[in-house]
Amino acid sequence: MNYHVLTLFPEMILDGMNTSIIGRAMAKGLLTLEAVNIRDYSVTGNGRIDDYPYGGGAGMVMQAEPVYRACRDVTERIGYSPRVICLTPQGRVFNQKMAQELAGEEDLIFLCGHYEGIDERVLEEIATDFISIGDYVLTGGELPAMVVMDAVSRMIPGVLSNQESGQSESFQDGLLEYPQYSRPEEWRGKKVPPVLLSGHHGNVDRWRRNQSLLRTLKIRPELLTRAELDKKDLKYLEALLLEEGEESPDENTKEFLTKLLAMKKKT
Amino acid sequence: MNYHVLTLFPEMILDGMNTSIIGRAMAKGLLTLEAVNIRDYSVTGNGRIDDYPYGGGAGMVMQAEPVYRACRDVTERIGYSPRVICLTPQGRVFNQKMAQELAGEEDLIFLCGHYEGIDERVLEEIATDFISIGDYVLTGGELPAMVVMDAVSRMIPGVLSNQESGQSESFQDGLLEYPQYSRPEEWRGKKVPPVLLSGHHGNVDRWRRNQSLLRTLKIRPELLTRAELDKKDLKYLEALLLEEGEESPDENTKEFLTKLLAMKKKT
Repeated sequence: MNYHVLTLFPEMILDGMNTSIIGRAMAKGLLTLEAVNIRDYSVTGNGRIDDYPYGGGAGMVMQAEPVYRACRDVTERIGYSPRVICLTPQGRVFNQKMAQELAGEEDLIFLCGHYEGIDERVLEEIATDFISIGDYVLTGGELPAMVVMDAVSRMIPGVLSNQESGQSESFQDGLLEYPQYSRPEEWRGKKVPPVLLSGHHGNVDRWRRNQSLLRTLKIRPELLTRAELDKKDLKYLEALLLEEGEESPDENTKEFLTKLLAMKKKT
Repeated sequence: MNYHVLTLFPEMILDGMNTSIIGRAMAKGLLTLEAVNIRDYSVTGNGRIDDYPYGGGAGMVMQAEPVYRACRDVTERIGYSPRVICLTPQGRVFNQKMAQELAGEEDLIFLCGHYEGIDERVLEEIATDFISIGDYVLTGGELPAMVVMDAVSRMIPGVLSNQESGQSESFQDGLLEYPQYSRPEEWRGKKVPPVLLSGHHGNVDRWRRNQSLLRTLKIRPELLTRAELDKKDLKYLEALLLEEGEESPDENTKEFLTKLLAMKKKT
């Protein structure tokens, strides 16, 4: 995979992607990364690449021509036009499935906006994808591009070791992760749950799955609607409804659970 | 606002936040940022801060004590315990409202996980918030922490100039942004929409609002359900239903629109 990032802040991209798994994958030759400075394609020749918006309003707009030239420079060099991803709040919301799909590409061009946006005409001309990483406003497209590259890189064969690959699969079953514990067995008066020390793999797996279900129910109940749940999962959730005391879900959660169970049993 | 980031990759945080609006705000003294290396608090003294998970499974877990000590070092230095935000897929999904709320704090501690997670007991002990920036798997909490800091910083008074502040408000009405155009009037055969050159502010505003509605309908229809729409907005959306030709929405969109209009008219 070759990443080409069109940006006003090339150092930010290059410095930020150099650590950890991504840096290691670059060293292994599985990934390459170049940051192309859009300012180098200024039409006025003085590095200026923005101008006032037609129709008025606050802020400046990145002009079409410098962005176009920066992109064309990449496509001419590599000899074809790969997907060009514009990072923008006006995009589809990024998720793990999109990461997996993008990981199949040979090259990806990322276009990072700044100021009040980019002239629409160059987006119509060059952009193939519009991606938002979430419903919040950021200073520019650099952090979103880094987030997308990080998530995509992890899906490229060979980037993660076999052991690491196992980790991300758990997210893909649509539930939140169970809690983790490491040494010592007792830390500041808090003990590791005894089942994890039991050596009984079946019980450990069941406990972890139940913790995942419980956590998802508490924090992201909507994920349960889409998740694949088996008979044992449903039995555990049903038992939660009858739970009394500390672990007992509140009334809203109970109502949600009742509906969820009815829906899951139908299918 | 003072940011304290507990991390295994301090340079990544410091390099990445140094650009653009955030860097300027730091130079102005509106923000401070420190990155605390969790490895400096290794209990074995050799920089090792991870160990195998109890109960088995792939990957390593960050141990409780180094994380606890790194955090305590910050809270002792500043003399109180601010909110401690753990960046994790097992968190509430970050949005603009949370950014605004966090911007009211004096200090924020961010805890960036790596490997297969952090020992649950230290999270119970120190973390006050669990935040996810979206439904995708990343290598660590550093990029999410940078994303949250970027979004939060923009909401701190004085960080954005008056002109820039105006920009982010438009996101807050719950619709996607309208397209922007800058010079020249004609670029590679593509013209700026004539209304933007008309000088008629009312028409420009209406056109932009309609473009926002149209774009939101196409890309993120669910946002329209929550957005505040006035009579003119509803009239425009109604007209879309009768549209024929290129601009005509597809059958699914028409069905959604019909339901939306019925719902909005009731309220």
